[in-house]
Amino acid sequence: MTSSAFLQDFHHVATIGATANNGVDRQAATPDDAKTRAWFGQWIHDAGWQLQVDGIGNMFGLLEWTPGAPFILIGSHLDSQPLGGRFDGAYGVIAALHAARAIDLDVRSTGTAPRFNLAVVNWFNEEGGRFAPSVMGSSVFTGLFDREEMLSVKDLQGVSVREALEGIGYLGTDTGPKAAGYAEIHIEQGRILEREGISIGLVDSSWYTQKLDIEVLGEQSHTGATAMADRHDALVAASKIILMVHQVTKEFAEEALVSSVGQLTLEPNSPIVVARRVHLVADLRSGDPEIVKSARARLLADIAALAAEHDIKVNVKDFDIRPIRRFPEAGLELSAKVAANLGLSSRRIQTMAGHDSVAMNTAVPSVMLFVPSVDGVSHCEREFTTDEDMVTGVQMLTGVTRELVQGELA
Amino acid sequence: MTSSAFLQDFHHVATIGATANNGVDRQAATPDDAKTRAWFGQWIHDAGWQLQVDGIGNMFGLLEWTPGAPFILIGSHLDSQPLGGRFDGAYGVIAALHAARAIDLDVRSTGTAPRFNLAVVNWFNEEGGRFAPSVMGSSVFTGLFDREEMLSVKDLQGVSVREALEGIGYLGTDTGPKAAGYAEIHIEQGRILEREGISIGLVDSSWYTQKLDIEVLGEQSHTGATAMADRHDALVAASKIILMVHQVTKEFAEEALVSSVGQLTLEPNSPIVVARRVHLVADLRSGDPEIVKSARARLLADIAALAAEHDIKVNVKDFDIRPIRRFPEAGLELSAKVAANLGLSSRRIQTMAGHDSVAMNTAVPSVMLFVPSVDGVSHCEREFTTDEDMVTGVQMLTGVTRELVQGELA
Repeated sequence: MTSSAFLQDFHHVATIGATANNGVDRQAATPDDAKTRAWFGQWIHDAGWQLQVDGIGNMFGLLEWTPGAPFILIGSHLDSQPLGGRFDGAYGVIAALHAARAIDLDVRSTGTAPRFNLAVVNWFNEEGGRFAPSVMGSSVFTGLFDREEMLSVKDLQGVSVREALEGIGYLGTDTGPKAAGYAEIHIEQGRILEREGISIGLVDSSWYTQKLDIEVLGEQSHTGATAMADRHDALVAASKIILMVHQVTKEFAEEALVSSVGQLTLEPNSPIVVARRVHLVADLRSGDPEIVKSARARLLADIAALAAEHDIKVNVKDFDIRPIRRFPEAGLELSAKVAANLGLSSRRIQTMAGHDSVAMNTAVPSVMLFVPSVDGVSHCEREFTTDEDMVTGVQMLTGVTRELVQGELA
Repeated sequence: MTSSAFLQDFHHVATIGATANNGVDRQAATPDDAKTRAWFGQWIHDAGWQLQVDGIGNMFGLLEWTPGAPFILIGSHLDSQPLGGRFDGAYGVIAALHAARAIDLDVRSTGTAPRFNLAVVNWFNEEGGRFAPSVMGSSVFTGLFDREEMLSVKDLQGVSVREALEGIGYLGTDTGPKAAGYAEIHIEQGRILEREGISIGLVDSSWYTQKLDIEVLGEQSHTGATAMADRHDALVAASKIILMVHQVTKEFAEEALVSSVGQLTLEPNSPIVVARRVHLVADLRSGDPEIVKSARARLLADIAALAAEHDIKVNVKDFDIRPIRRFPEAGLELSAKVAANLGLSSRRIQTMAGHDSVAMNTAVPSVMLFVPSVDGVSHCEREFTTDEDMVTGVQMLTGVTRELVQGELA
């Protein structure tokens, strides 16, 4: 691969759905997501590979050197958060395209096909900002989520995944390649590699995560004419719950638990009406499942006490529980060796965020690699990774993929 | 007037935009608002009166007994809050129709025209749930608000008042009648009349009210991958502000101040993204302007301290400030006499809520009457007033209107 070709592609894709402050806004199955998909499809076509789109909108570019042999998949996702960063996901897909092209050139020049075929993938809706849950496309591909159920998920405007994918022309009918392994490279979204001056993170496990769906039911009344003592204000109670979700992290060691409420809707949402209903989603994550379980129990007890105090009803449901997943030891060792051979520093690292590789790792041996993030910021416009670190990452992914197609992790 | 004809009309209008739990949802310039408008227009037509619609959607039914003479206006509003009650506003309009018809029959049977003509009015957008500020139509009519400015107000979907009124066919070109006085009857929306067993409230003044437009600007980041210490969570800060707005009432005598946050929007509103921006509206009301000013000062200081503590920016703007308005003493005395003549108990009372009569009273001598509310609840589906109390109120409004058209308050 040539680093200039990779960088040209990367910086071009960053212009699709670009925002005022150097970010992108390409939520799943929106017109701007469709534009990156068209770009990806054209790239596959120009490379002379075969394009497939499956029934949940995942796109695959297939290099079938040996007809009938299983595939190593490499890739990530081109969708973004609303006002998201231009690196999260897109970097991994574009790195995979260039890694695959480098290997394809080798195979063509030597005339020797490796054990496995190779496919580059753009997974549907990794972000989950528009359609929850996140990591949707790869989770359907691996059978963790039911396809029909996911197609009926609706966004806040009532549009279903099925309608949205049909609307952009990406509800495919292919089944996708038979997978034998998976590799993905991604920005760290944290500060560890930057702080330690290390080039490559070798992800050994993912955090335990879960969400709580919380519905607060008060009583609608007039903001002017209703005595304070007579109110059952759903937003006041919801505000206390939001602060509980924030505060509960302080019950545990520093940064052992992260939590937040990122989504909230209010009814009727009128300036002069006391709210009758607030719906919110809390997100809890830790490297230790017991910490999440303990925080959840504490929140449930505190919420029950709050509901009694305010004489309102609060319904809490668990959803999107994701256990700690460990990546195979053999993949970590193989990757460490590739890094060393390239003269790159590396270290093992956990991922607090979910990734398509976590879903894929439940089905086939998978490798997850990180490159450094400046300031550790992500899911926002000022997310940043240097060109140099990105190019180094492409070399690393290329090296690991060479091993995988040879069957080193089979 | 016959009480059965009034009750038949009232219960019919309650079916327009009816909700599952006996409420109505007829927000300003929606299709269901258009249906009550069509009903009102048909009623005026059937009565043989003249219909006018002005440039902010106010509807007037004119009884012009003496060409060129000014008009006494009576009425209220047919729009409602989202999932609102069926009494708030609609009761006053339908009561006014029947009061006007009773007086019209007198005038026709005696052949003697009173000093003033009479008009029944349905004011546009009293509620302000969809388009802020509230009390819009009557405030434009009296010159308190600028018409062009109000026509450009947009709802949360970006639809302007002008577009919405044009959409339902009620952006009129009439100027409306020249007013010499105004009377309105409304449910109390509080518990005082019910508690004291009194039939009629004579409103002597309105509360001092103001709103605060609050914009909380944090930084968007990943809920999973961002360390708690690195976050600038706009929703956490906004939750603290909501609780401040709620708590500040406890700094003053019981029920001397009411406050709330009823509207809030969150960006980007994704379950796995820390919020970058929250916009909310706080509402402060008191019978004593100094209490509102003191509470506002306290909130501004606390919000500034909070912004510094969270390292975020909070923009606060005053808007919709409404001073205490006193209704004329002569109108209160006249109303007390009418009540006594009808054998009805009455008492003077303040209104915590805004009303079209408060706007009209800035332009012409106005009378505001209340009938009891069961449990004091309002702006919700279980708002209730008995048929008997409503019929009594129609008699009261009819009696007061007879005096007003004779020029008793001129």
